[in-house]
Amino acid sequence: MDLDVLFVGTAGSAPSARRGLPATLVRRGGERLLFDCGEGTQRQLIRSVGLVEIDEVFITHFHADHVLGLPGMLKTYGLQGRTRPLSVYGPRGLTRLFEILRPLVGRTPFEVEVREVDAGDELSRDGYVLAAFAVDHRVPAFGWALVEHERPGVFSPDRAEALGILPGPAFGRLQRGESVAGADGEVRPEQVMGEPRAGRKLVITGDTAPCEMTAAVAHEADLLVHEATFLDEEAERARATGHSTAGEAARIAAQARVRMLALTHVSARHMAGAIRDEARAAFTPTIVPRDFDRVLLPFAERGGPEHLREDER
Amino acid sequence: MDLDVLFVGTAGSAPSARRGLPATLVRRGGERLLFDCGEGTQRQLIRSVGLVEIDEVFITHFHADHVLGLPGMLKTYGLQGRTRPLSVYGPRGLTRLFEILRPLVGRTPFEVEVREVDAGDELSRDGYVLAAFAVDHRVPAFGWALVEHERPGVFSPDRAEALGILPGPAFGRLQRGESVAGADGEVRPEQVMGEPRAGRKLVITGDTAPCEMTAAVAHEADLLVHEATFLDEEAERARATGHSTAGEAARIAAQARVRMLALTHVSARHMAGAIRDEARAAFTPTIVPRDFDRVLLPFAERGGPEHLREDER
Repeated sequence: MDLDVLFVGTAGSAPSARRGLPATLVRRGGERLLFDCGEGTQRQLIRSVGLVEIDEVFITHFHADHVLGLPGMLKTYGLQGRTRPLSVYGPRGLTRLFEILRPLVGRTPFEVEVREVDAGDELSRDGYVLAAFAVDHRVPAFGWALVEHERPGVFSPDRAEALGILPGPAFGRLQRGESVAGADGEVRPEQVMGEPRAGRKLVITGDTAPCEMTAAVAHEADLLVHEATFLDEEAERARATGHSTAGEAARIAAQARVRMLALTHVSARHMAGAIRDEARAAFTPTIVPRDFDRVLLPFAERGGPEHLREDER
Repeated sequence: MDLDVLFVGTAGSAPSARRGLPATLVRRGGERLLFDCGEGTQRQLIRSVGLVEIDEVFITHFHADHVLGLPGMLKTYGLQGRTRPLSVYGPRGLTRLFEILRPLVGRTPFEVEVREVDAGDELSRDGYVLAAFAVDHRVPAFGWALVEHERPGVFSPDRAEALGILPGPAFGRLQRGESVAGADGEVRPEQVMGEPRAGRKLVITGDTAPCEMTAAVAHEADLLVHEATFLDEEAERARATGHSTAGEAARIAAQARVRMLALTHVSARHMAGAIRDEARAAFTPTIVPRDFDRVLLPFAERGGPEHLREDER
């Protein structure tokens, strides 16, 4: 099951020539999940993977730079004749936001399901959960964590045959967790299956000051996408505005022992190199992706997260 | 007095990889006038001339693709600490639009003056008027015409001296339209000034079916910026949706005897070359500008409109 992250917009607050407003696309198998939808997101998608029919949009909070791309994207889906429903999840207030946006969007030929959730809510999906967790911003704001279920261990045909099981339907039953009759009595799955294997974990903070909740939720995540609006020398301003410095984000990543840290919400005031260098001093596996960069998240046994630069595709 | 047009966004309805949503920047001397403000306009400006402090925005109509860039642009001006007021003009309903947008924008540190106008209204400016004229779209919609005042003719120092006027303050008085005493009695300005010279005229239609009003208002305009959402083979669809074909726009331009026609509101379904070719069959001086192309509009005596491609700058 492929899992990757496409950085659709990596600017914060205002766009720059190179960076669009916040949006992150997560692709898992055939699913397309969009986290935040800043102004221009539909065009950023068109410029990269195409305006794919996203099934679910997850909003972190209602600041304009994270949501103003919604009405235009819905409008364009309508022009395309989309009929598949679209669900939008976000903090309480989402219904009110859509009341505001509705006259701008007009009628759509598809249903838009607006779902308010609370911090701590988990949305159950096939093979994973999506959890909203409270972060620390100027307004109620969520991070979102995608946490895959544990996978069964690896089935050993050799061990099964040694216990007198012949290749065939019995192999399948053992792998699905059923016991079967062997040469010397019953064979239980745990006799022929390896240790359960961890699923993957991906955490996207949205806008937040550094907070313990992020460190806890992101514990041993494969990828933490954390905002880094400021540098350490601006820590006071970061506090006043409910944002993080690159160094603070890196220290959260180190505390959580994530495998890779991707910094976003990059201000046009800073060079990406300065943000990266400050973060790497505290946490080496840090990247500052450009728009349209991707991070591939293979299962752990197949290697670590891999950063693919847009211009290397 | 320099006058040029920057094509900020030349797509219609939905953006494409190459074309942003409708926005056209007119620069006259130090003035910056924006016509329509589709989603992504602030970033298109940042990518070209920078997010200059636009004084006035003129909306043609309230379809989403023409206005959804307003809240984000106002928001970013606020982040920049703008204090200069911004005026927005548009058809009746503009106040209601701003009531809808207000909660998305929040408070701004500068005043936003919302001014509803009627078709036929003329806004008087230093050296020109801006006129809103009714076009033919599915909803009430304006085109906008920028019409410069006539300029005085060219002063002839030789003729003045021949009439006994010495170079000095009397030259200035004659050029300002006053009579002065000469060697053989009073010298009137018309004796030493050439014919009054025409000002320039620039017309932007917004979305519209081909209509007589456009042809009348654009009579002998230096530049007509006309929409061309369809090709002639789709004329039926153009009628149903209140839009124009490239051929129709060209025939309006030919009828109005404009100096140059620039086609915008380009659909991603069409190659710009097909639009251009269809229009040129009816009106040769047609261009289909790309985003960030400019058209310079010198005074007539200094030459015709000049199309500068973005990649030629």
